[in-house]
Amino acid sequence: MIQVKGYAAQNAKTDLAPWNFERREVGPHDVQFDILYCGICHSDLHQIKDEWGGAIYPMVPGHEIVGKVVKVGAHVKKFKVGDLAGVGCLVDSCRTCDNCKEGLEQYCLTGSSYTYNGYEQDKKTPTYGGYSNTIVVHEDFVLQISEKLSLAAVAPLLCAGITTYSPLKYWKVGKGHKLAVLGLGGLGHMGVKFGVALGAEVTVLSTSASKEADAKKLGAHKFVVTSDEKQFKSVTGYFDFILDTVSAPHDFNQYLSLLRTNGTHICVGVPPEASAVHAFSLLGGRKSLAGSMIGGLPETQEMLDFCAEHNIVSDIEMIDIKNIKQAFDRMVKGDVRYRFVIDMATL
Amino acid sequence: MIQVKGYAAQNAKTDLAPWNFERREVGPHDVQFDILYCGICHSDLHQIKDEWGGAIYPMVPGHEIVGKVVKVGAHVKKFKVGDLAGVGCLVDSCRTCDNCKEGLEQYCLTGSSYTYNGYEQDKKTPTYGGYSNTIVVHEDFVLQISEKLSLAAVAPLLCAGITTYSPLKYWKVGKGHKLAVLGLGGLGHMGVKFGVALGAEVTVLSTSASKEADAKKLGAHKFVVTSDEKQFKSVTGYFDFILDTVSAPHDFNQYLSLLRTNGTHICVGVPPEASAVHAFSLLGGRKSLAGSMIGGLPETQEMLDFCAEHNIVSDIEMIDIKNIKQAFDRMVKGDVRYRFVIDMATL
Repeated sequence: MIQVKGYAAQNAKTDLAPWNFERREVGPHDVQFDILYCGICHSDLHQIKDEWGGAIYPMVPGHEIVGKVVKVGAHVKKFKVGDLAGVGCLVDSCRTCDNCKEGLEQYCLTGSSYTYNGYEQDKKTPTYGGYSNTIVVHEDFVLQISEKLSLAAVAPLLCAGITTYSPLKYWKVGKGHKLAVLGLGGLGHMGVKFGVALGAEVTVLSTSASKEADAKKLGAHKFVVTSDEKQFKSVTGYFDFILDTVSAPHDFNQYLSLLRTNGTHICVGVPPEASAVHAFSLLGGRKSLAGSMIGGLPETQEMLDFCAEHNIVSDIEMIDIKNIKQAFDRMVKGDVRYRFVIDMATL
Repeated sequence: MIQVKGYAAQNAKTDLAPWNFERREVGPHDVQFDILYCGICHSDLHQIKDEWGGAIYPMVPGHEIVGKVVKVGAHVKKFKVGDLAGVGCLVDSCRTCDNCKEGLEQYCLTGSSYTYNGYEQDKKTPTYGGYSNTIVVHEDFVLQISEKLSLAAVAPLLCAGITTYSPLKYWKVGKGHKLAVLGLGGLGHMGVKFGVALGAEVTVLSTSASKEADAKKLGAHKFVVTSDEKQFKSVTGYFDFILDTVSAPHDFNQYLSLLRTNGTHICVGVPPEASAVHAFSLLGGRKSLAGSMIGGLPETQEMLDFCAEHNIVSDIEMIDIKNIKQAFDRMVKGDVRYRFVIDMATL
């Protein structure tokens, strides 16, 4: 077994703290890479605190993982020692169900293996994430990363990136479309970059007027302060798509009114509670309220290649892992533009 | 002006009663037809009772109207005296907005003119519906009806028919799809007929086990009693589409669990209250909750032609207009298979 250093939550109450654990030896199809950077996703905190239920402790969070390959199995074809590599939210899936065969491993019908707070496909070996110094993953779930981009700023693409890229591609958002990005956080700022790169007219909807300059700097064409009733009403029936990145409770009906006929409101954030939807909000204009969850492996690679081609990365703030608690506190307050990334050299 | 006999509600509290009123003379583009049959839609009762707000009294309900042309204006091209004719939920729209230009008059951006409980495009002349002996409508909003079908049984196609046909066409439901029809009433029984005619595998989801034989007779391939937990669970993740015709409160999350990856739950009924939706119900499987409202004029004509070709009509029970109150009472109890139609000769 490989000895690993990491940071773990031992239960829902205590802070993350150093914890040593083991990973499997590199098998014939495995890639081992030393982790250089790991992004901090809001879902890390939800899961550490067991806010979604079913938490598995000790928990080593982190699913925005990038680093450099140090060992490959005998049958590995895609990677060699020294290559850059990344792992996102998934480390395995059944590979045989209809969804897996279509490259939709995130919707694996028998349950994919999440990178942490989950189990390997044996359904009993816990998985441990990227707040650690090295990781071993089957090559099919390891992504290739271009040398062209800033590696630390690539890390958040593995979750925040694919989560926003995937729905924009699935719903074929592009030229001629008016896209609203609701919420300008880790997900939202990537939604803006992708929406612009795909050719859509992008409007940021935010409660916070102070983010207008940032939104424009990210490429957004318009900015609407949602708490300003006049501004809000001015975009009634305006958008083809709303990419809803908000994880706080909010009223879907209100935003559905901003859609044009046949428009689609796509949720990628997960509010803690259900939100009431009036049938009339959907019927009047043949509207859809939809959801999308991360992305499959082929599309994640496509997204990384798209980013290399269009020079897209996340806007990040690098931290020392010893400051993880402060980073969580600031993230909860929305005080990060737009993603914290742990410099794993500080471990 | 043309003198008309009808049945009207004078306010939200009293029963419908005979009422005489006037309609405009036949203009150059108008068609006048004597009403032979008018279907009874649940929305008639909602509106008579002002349950959706904004009721306009006196109110002559009825938007499933068929009859025989008695007069046409000088410029009318589609109709001649003696032709069969029909009018559905709309009698006019702005005709100039993007939706009207695309034949989506039901989503007219400045407000279409509903057949009753609405106003003409002058926004001040009230419209009166089909519980009456004759009607005058611009030919663009009058539908052509085949002589091949039972005329009385065609009437409900003008609302219940188009309301279920339109979403099945928009979402391209057909061969290879598994379609659930939720609720087997006036709308649901048409959804079954259209789903079968379009080549889908159709399952009726109903609380009422007693409807199984009927569902099969209508052409449904499967029947699931939703209150039977084992039966309900047996179709988890099974359907590509759910056509939700239920107007009573119900839990969308429960039905979303029956959809496959990328599945769509289409609401055509309007529950009186909003229903709570969990984002996870949508994200897990990239699902959509959508709505659809009646249909535009070109598609309504297409639907009527499709019905003539496939020999599809509504299953009806004919009533004397004097028994309208009993019909309403039975409709509320779901005691009609599957649509009441008023024989207007009884007026």
